[in-house]
Amino acid sequence: MIGELKRFLVGRPIETAAQHDQRLSKRIALAVFSSDALSSVAYASEAILVVLITAGAGSLPLVIEISLGIALLLLIVGFSYRQTIYAYPSGGGAYIVAHENLGQIPGLIAAASLLIDYVLTVAVSVSAGVFAITSLAATWGYGGLATYRVEIALACITLITIINLRGVKESGLIFSVPTYVFVVSMIALLGVGLMRIVTTNAAPIPVAPSELPIPTATIGLFLLLQAFSAGCTALTSVEAISNGVPAFRRPESKNAATTLLWMVGILGVMFLGLSVLAHYYGTVPREDVSVVSQIARQVVGTGPAFFVIQVSTALILVLAANTSYADFPRLASLLSRDRFLPRQFSSRGDRLVFSNGIVALGVFAALLVIVFDAREQAMLPLYAIGVFISFTLSQYGMVRHWLRLRESGWRTSAIINAIGAVLTAVVFIVIIITRFSHGAWAVLVLIPILVLLFRAIHQHYVTVARQLSLEKTARVVPVQRNTAIVLVSGVHRGVIPALEFAKSIATDNTMAVYVNLDDEQTEKVRVKWSQWGSGVPLIVLESPYRSLIGPIMRYIDQVDQLYDDDVLSVILPEFIPSKWWQHLLHNQTALAIKAALLFRKGIVVISVPYHLAS
Amino acid sequence: MIGELKRFLVGRPIETAAQHDQRLSKRIALAVFSSDALSSVAYASEAILVVLITAGAGSLPLVIEISLGIALLLLIVGFSYRQTIYAYPSGGGAYIVAHENLGQIPGLIAAASLLIDYVLTVAVSVSAGVFAITSLAATWGYGGLATYRVEIALACITLITIINLRGVKESGLIFSVPTYVFVVSMIALLGVGLMRIVTTNAAPIPVAPSELPIPTATIGLFLLLQAFSAGCTALTSVEAISNGVPAFRRPESKNAATTLLWMVGILGVMFLGLSVLAHYYGTVPREDVSVVSQIARQVVGTGPAFFVIQVSTALILVLAANTSYADFPRLASLLSRDRFLPRQFSSRGDRLVFSNGIVALGVFAALLVIVFDAREQAMLPLYAIGVFISFTLSQYGMVRHWLRLRESGWRTSAIINAIGAVLTAVVFIVIIITRFSHGAWAVLVLIPILVLLFRAIHQHYVTVARQLSLEKTARVVPVQRNTAIVLVSGVHRGVIPALEFAKSIATDNTMAVYVNLDDEQTEKVRVKWSQWGSGVPLIVLESPYRSLIGPIMRYIDQVDQLYDDDVLSVILPEFIPSKWWQHLLHNQTALAIKAALLFRKGIVVISVPYHLAS
Repeated sequence: MIGELKRFLVGRPIETAAQHDQRLSKRIALAVFSSDALSSVAYASEAILVVLITAGAGSLPLVIEISLGIALLLLIVGFSYRQTIYAYPSGGGAYIVAHENLGQIPGLIAAASLLIDYVLTVAVSVSAGVFAITSLAATWGYGGLATYRVEIALACITLITIINLRGVKESGLIFSVPTYVFVVSMIALLGVGLMRIVTTNAAPIPVAPSELPIPTATIGLFLLLQAFSAGCTALTSVEAISNGVPAFRRPESKNAATTLLWMVGILGVMFLGLSVLAHYYGTVPREDVSVVSQIARQVVGTGPAFFVIQVSTALILVLAANTSYADFPRLASLLSRDRFLPRQFSSRGDRLVFSNGIVALGVFAALLVIVFDAREQAMLPLYAIGVFISFTLSQYGMVRHWLRLRESGWRTSAIINAIGAVLTAVVFIVIIITRFSHGAWAVLVLIPILVLLFRAIHQHYVTVARQLSLEKTARVVPVQRNTAIVLVSGVHRGVIPALEFAKSIATDNTMAVYVNLDDEQTEKVRVKWSQWGSGVPLIVLESPYRSLIGPIMRYIDQVDQLYDDDVLSVILPEFIPSKWWQHLLHNQTALAIKAALLFRKGIVVISVPYHLAS
Repeated sequence: MIGELKRFLVGRPIETAAQHDQRLSKRIALAVFSSDALSSVAYASEAILVVLITAGAGSLPLVIEISLGIALLLLIVGFSYRQTIYAYPSGGGAYIVAHENLGQIPGLIAAASLLIDYVLTVAVSVSAGVFAITSLAATWGYGGLATYRVEIALACITLITIINLRGVKESGLIFSVPTYVFVVSMIALLGVGLMRIVTTNAAPIPVAPSELPIPTATIGLFLLLQAFSAGCTALTSVEAISNGVPAFRRPESKNAATTLLWMVGILGVMFLGLSVLAHYYGTVPREDVSVVSQIARQVVGTGPAFFVIQVSTALILVLAANTSYADFPRLASLLSRDRFLPRQFSSRGDRLVFSNGIVALGVFAALLVIVFDAREQAMLPLYAIGVFISFTLSQYGMVRHWLRLRESGWRTSAIINAIGAVLTAVVFIVIIITRFSHGAWAVLVLIPILVLLFRAIHQHYVTVARQLSLEKTARVVPVQRNTAIVLVSGVHRGVIPALEFAKSIATDNTMAVYVNLDDEQTEKVRVKWSQWGSGVPLIVLESPYRSLIGPIMRYIDQVDQLYDDDVLSVILPEFIPSKWWQHLLHNQTALAIKAALLFRKGIVVISVPYHLAS
């Protein structure tokens, strides 16, 4: 039944041979790799305003200057990553670049940051997408929808998880349409909005005092940096293209580099434009409707155009979440291949996708959504930390790369990456200082824990491999003698095949063991045994505390000491009900005994089933 | 580690031989068996007022008449149960009486009602006890405590569950003190309160209009019956003494009967008295403080006497919950012994108590508390249904008992029980009609479901017993030949002992099976096998969909068809990590294969462990 449900949800299995490389044109690659980065405009300007508003309406115009600074940072980071694309045509994720150039620990730190980020991407994007939809609903008078935002977000995550478990073959088209609809509608929104400002020569609309919360902070360096840090979430996923170079058509690096610059350009324009509009239209962050939806409403009203903007925003955010569903399982499988994560993450499921990574991502993202009540602005302080750690490590790794290889033009490249590394490191520190108490501390605690975990797992696998190695094995010793203990819970049909099997493998060395929990019952068993025991001696163990496991384990120890040259088998007659729920109706003692024997060295455990009709 | 935690919470195991009968004096038995019944005065009068207030303050004086009616019913039911005590000196619970005199189905209906009731007793009593404490806190100005009522209630349930898992040996004393403190303080409260009314010749205090909710109903027969039904919760657990006759000192029946009458008397006086005081002091049910606490406050103020009343109320309610912890596991074990519930409920844990029943009761009660937000008044409509079903069945069963046996004086006895049966049946119907939409329907749905479940379980056990019976077994056929399949995931040290064991039990009939998931890897395995395979043939199975289970099961089917006279064993080399968490790091394939083989008939499953050092 579970199998059928899985087939219905996930689809039929796909042959290994069907694995193939799909090469993407620049136009489609831009959609596939940029949806995550571009979608951040849905919340980045709002994040700046959320900080500024704490110092009152007077500080809101600063959004322009801060956005300009972030756009500049974006440009520098973009050029820095352009270097990585040329240097790592086979895909240069932060984990690979840092691991290769800086060593294991930096590599693992980058990996931990990235894994955290991918989970946050899903949680933040889905929450922001739901906010876009509830803003639309609230504008049209259905404010009540917002109370279901956690449920809607969880439903979205479940849906995306299932789609990814099926495997996304048709990704190109699915990505292109919403991404380009989003880009076009945003650019149109900006164009119309800015034109209206220019033509009416309007001064910024002052914020109505009734909409303002009471100021709790004053304008100062700290607040500015805090707002800057908040806006830096616009830079998330800029590195996506450099991870995916092999997916581009030839010449891969050149195409990828061009696409990266296009993406940076579009992202910068949209982000800056929205900040400018937010300023001129006197937008204030609100609980019920998003900043983008407020701007859109003022520019295009609440008609069909508004609908298109809100829905395409929601769609691109869902696509952004979907990007993580490719990145997280791939990174997890890389880590798993290098033995830093459990093996399960590197095995492809029957739909050829890394199913375990996909499910893990879905579960963690769902937990985040629940914890943060699907409010993406509350998650943002956690978000940027990981991004900038991986930026810094990756850029610094590139500097080391150039210094090591000294290919032609290495000086320029090293300088570009060094500027990128220093800048992102500074921003990283700024983010820590300004956002520490808003949740950034949690990421700083989590990353070292993950790194320690990776290393513990690695250590374990290395130890196991050494112990399983046959290289120094002494000669193989054949089994000299078998000893068999049959555990019986009574004398019934289920015991007979177990007894016969025991006699067939340990003819003169078989004994049956029964634990006395009730004297009367035991006497009955003794009598029946004389008739049905086939000559096998019945050992009755006393159990003053009504425990089964204790006396059995002690007896096994005794028997084990009898011979040195034998293998001791414990045989469990198990009757198997025909329906799964009937298992609940039988004492789970066989299971408990097996679990206890598992940790007892040198015991072979044998289950002889007796199948019951319904 | 889990074992140590269990020992710490539950204590060391107790020998079976320590099981003993503790006989109780009447005075202690009254405390032990009556806490549940007596504690219902904490909420019964309030339950009546809660209904009456919906018709406005004018209807409140009716509480006196309704309480008188309930007290009369109590007296009749008491005398009816007195008959049961004499007829069933070994304990006449409703399940036993109904099963014996009316048949299986009525017995099971009584059992289902009782199980539901025991769960409700815990949930209602604990919630009411928490309400007593939060009322005390609210009176003293700590109204905020009420927001934690669910948490407090769950903590109480957990604590009671743990105490009962330890086993309650010193029950007599523990019960006596709070019960008698409660009875004495209640009687004192009534005495002082009534005396003040008489001496001041006071008219009832009218209710302040500001305290009144807006009336939503009018006084009529339906409302009266509804209020009567609500008050009938005062009768819960009147049957407790008749269940526990064997625990009394000799002459058991006589002592038990006397104790029952005492209990009925005390309960009737307290219940009636509180209703009268509620009327004279103009008490109105409120969210924050209980009716009893309002009365107490007006009679004795908010000083130490108030504290004693509230705390002893809370304590006796907790004791009432504790009573169910004896009743529920005992009834579950009776049902389990008669094969209507899983066997696990009839096995005594290592502290000699029916641990599974205790844990089940705790879990269900906790769920109820969560669902009903620890508000006992909301649970009361569910409560009385089960009580009156078991009353009716038990009394009617007694009528049949007398008609069957026709002992001396059977006519009088039959008439008394018949009156009881008819009256409780009428009340049962009244409760259904008046409380149906308040939740009583849920109990009416649940009882038949439970009865069907009991019967399905019974059917299963009977079928299994028939199939396991050796009576018609043909002669035992010894095993002619063993065939062994060793499943290998690679060639490493863990495989060697499995291979040697296989050769020892099926010398010429052993084969190794490997599933090809990766051609390169498979080639390596083939090469290594030629060196380490000890001459056992290696079968490589192809798996285009990367599934392990499918190809293995198909191969097993093929091999199984080869011979008719053999036993087919599947041997799994398992490497066992030294720490439990390390299990997570290895593919759980062995487990999955075992689960698949479990349902494949006629396969012996053998685990040959290879233990890893840490």
